[in-house]
Amino acid sequence: MTQIESARNNELTPELLQIAEKEGISSEELRKKVAKGHVVILKNINHKNVTPIGVGEGLSIKVNANIGTSHQRSGLAEELKKLQIVEETGADTVMDLSTGGDIDATRRSILSKSTIPLGTVPIYQIGVTSANSQESFMEVNKDDILGIIENHCRDGVDFITVHCGVTKAVAQCLEQNPRVTGIVSRGGSMHASWIKKHNRENPLYEYYDELLDIAKTYDTTLSLGDGLRPGSGADAGDRAQVMETIVLGELVQRARNAGVQAMVEGPGHVPFNLIKGMIETIKTLTFKAPLYVLGPLVTDIAPGYDHITAAIGGTAAAAAGADFLCYVTPSEHIGLPNPEQVRQGVVTSKIAAHAADVARGRQASIEQDRLMSAARMNLDWKKQAEYAIDKNVFENIDDGKPCTMCGEYCSMKIFKETVSF
Amino acid sequence: MTQIESARNNELTPELLQIAEKEGISSEELRKKVAKGHVVILKNINHKNVTPIGVGEGLSIKVNANIGTSHQRSGLAEELKKLQIVEETGADTVMDLSTGGDIDATRRSILSKSTIPLGTVPIYQIGVTSANSQESFMEVNKDDILGIIENHCRDGVDFITVHCGVTKAVAQCLEQNPRVTGIVSRGGSMHASWIKKHNRENPLYEYYDELLDIAKTYDTTLSLGDGLRPGSGADAGDRAQVMETIVLGELVQRARNAGVQAMVEGPGHVPFNLIKGMIETIKTLTFKAPLYVLGPLVTDIAPGYDHITAAIGGTAAAAAGADFLCYVTPSEHIGLPNPEQVRQGVVTSKIAAHAADVARGRQASIEQDRLMSAARMNLDWKKQAEYAIDKNVFENIDDGKPCTMCGEYCSMKIFKETVSF
Repeated sequence: MTQIESARNNELTPELLQIAEKEGISSEELRKKVAKGHVVILKNINHKNVTPIGVGEGLSIKVNANIGTSHQRSGLAEELKKLQIVEETGADTVMDLSTGGDIDATRRSILSKSTIPLGTVPIYQIGVTSANSQESFMEVNKDDILGIIENHCRDGVDFITVHCGVTKAVAQCLEQNPRVTGIVSRGGSMHASWIKKHNRENPLYEYYDELLDIAKTYDTTLSLGDGLRPGSGADAGDRAQVMETIVLGELVQRARNAGVQAMVEGPGHVPFNLIKGMIETIKTLTFKAPLYVLGPLVTDIAPGYDHITAAIGGTAAAAAGADFLCYVTPSEHIGLPNPEQVRQGVVTSKIAAHAADVARGRQASIEQDRLMSAARMNLDWKKQAEYAIDKNVFENIDDGKPCTMCGEYCSMKIFKETVSF
Repeated sequence: MTQIESARNNELTPELLQIAEKEGISSEELRKKVAKGHVVILKNINHKNVTPIGVGEGLSIKVNANIGTSHQRSGLAEELKKLQIVEETGADTVMDLSTGGDIDATRRSILSKSTIPLGTVPIYQIGVTSANSQESFMEVNKDDILGIIENHCRDGVDFITVHCGVTKAVAQCLEQNPRVTGIVSRGGSMHASWIKKHNRENPLYEYYDELLDIAKTYDTTLSLGDGLRPGSGADAGDRAQVMETIVLGELVQRARNAGVQAMVEGPGHVPFNLIKGMIETIKTLTFKAPLYVLGPLVTDIAPGYDHITAAIGGTAAAAAGADFLCYVTPSEHIGLPNPEQVRQGVVTSKIAAHAADVARGRQASIEQDRLMSAARMNLDWKKQAEYAIDKNVFENIDDGKPCTMCGEYCSMKIFKETVSF
């Protein structure tokens, strides 16, 4: 049985109990949320040695980091190094988006090493495989697609992004309502391209029931990709995006009915003032499915700093109800990230997740802030390192002494010595 | 006449006309806002070669960068280097917070070089001067304080932070309602310490009329410091903070009545969910005075990354009505920033200001995003550099080619070549 089926069957699985304990929520409350599909538990039955993660309503905000080879850079060693950084820095999940080298071997190697849930986007491998065999992606059929998806699930992938919502009708809607940046999802553009060429329905939508069967077999959570997510502020919240979101809501219901766990992916590029309403709209249209957002980036003009534009939007989105933040690195829009950029991406997303946890009233997060500030007031740099998101920044500061910013004019020093109420 | 007096007198000063042109607002509309005190024009009559800046309602969000020597690092050359970086990176104003070396000479040198308005916090020099002459800050009197303030104004300082709102009653309120982090404003703690020692009223409050006379003589804008700003999320919005804000509102009215321009300073550390309400409360209590915020930082646990926590809060604050963002560098809470950290601080604050301008519906900012995204869609890296906040990040990318992030699987390339609606 999948986690959602067990929950409906009033069973408390070991994974559910472990998550309830870690999140500080009663197992019965968590069971209800999993049964309704408002929370998903990321854990493929074939992924050994993985710590299951809960994503959704009432739980702490999670952070995902993307790694993976590309055509230009396909070293397994570098990807395993990134995996290590990602786990050490505290990401909750990792996605392997490899498109270079031996994709199967890379994925299996990452799966065997990762202690956090792993996600993939199988359509990338389908595209690469058809290109490598001198065939066009245009010639793939639903058996090719479902075959590779089943490989990923059998290997133990905990969640897969599938762009089932890029239907013929949604693609036509986009055609009738042009955008500044068209389609910015790789998987989304591949499916739209296939639909346009064949004038046929997206196989992942047409044969969604077969996809559900595969996902159910391994308890792989479907991450329903938003292939039409806005890639610029100008396109945010347009007709095509909302049309696709409506389809995603239908797919969430069908997944739940089939006993398959599903979450929904969200934008993208969204001006700050539109984020709250958009998140609430997506949550409503998708029946409170756990929401996994890529950003949202609050401006288009900051390549090189998009970890920051994403942290601004991610905090606002998570405060408004998003549950899961995909990290964005400083190298977004300009290149593949190197290991240091991967680290920065994780830290920055964790800041956004934590700030949103505080905003949502999560007691443990609020208490961590309070303890940090009490240590700061005492100029206790060792204790600050315990509570800080990055403990390495305090090197070279003497305990009990103010830092060089204010020196002897440190307000905390003056306050404690001469005001000390 | 000061700018507010001229505006009330129906005069369109050269500074007002220049700002109206730059901001894309009618001069008559701007004149009304200046007359009401909802906009201030930063320009001391003695600051030559400075480009005046407008701050407040209906104008683009401005960014300030702090520089200045400290006891440990007091080289004028380094500060002039920082000034150059700050101007090149696009800060709208700069504050000289020097506490080391020859403070008068440093300020005059920065004033003679800066083409953007300069602010100072005169109480810092008062503290240093008393310490250097083996006297305690406790022994300074109102003539010492007003004397140094007049020096700053006569030299051409465009705006000064004055902690007039740290009154005896406000300090007592804090004493009765303890906090996690007490007072985190250097000027605030100095005044509270003086009040506690003498059990007397803050001279800057008691002799506020004399301060107004000085500010009026040079058209120096008063930046009414929030000495009781929260220094931790736990203290945000507490009784002492709001009590001080009420006093600041009284001081704004008295300044306006005296023909003196005044803005108000805001927090500090504020959880994301409280920012909007807090900004609206401050704006109401201070009669729509231009609001200059330091952050707000949305969590306490991210030293080393507080430019990011401040950008998250700064975007939310400016979207809710704040007008002016003081930059925060990665070195906040751990040391004096070096020139590269100064640059990062300015870029990050500019991102927050721009994102808020977009959120507030500023057409020029929305159009910059659209042009950037159109260039991105065309893989036109040269054009992207024109619109980007940092043009240097695009080096080594060939025009017309996708970047290494997705390579041949670039969604924009696929979309244009095979979907191309």
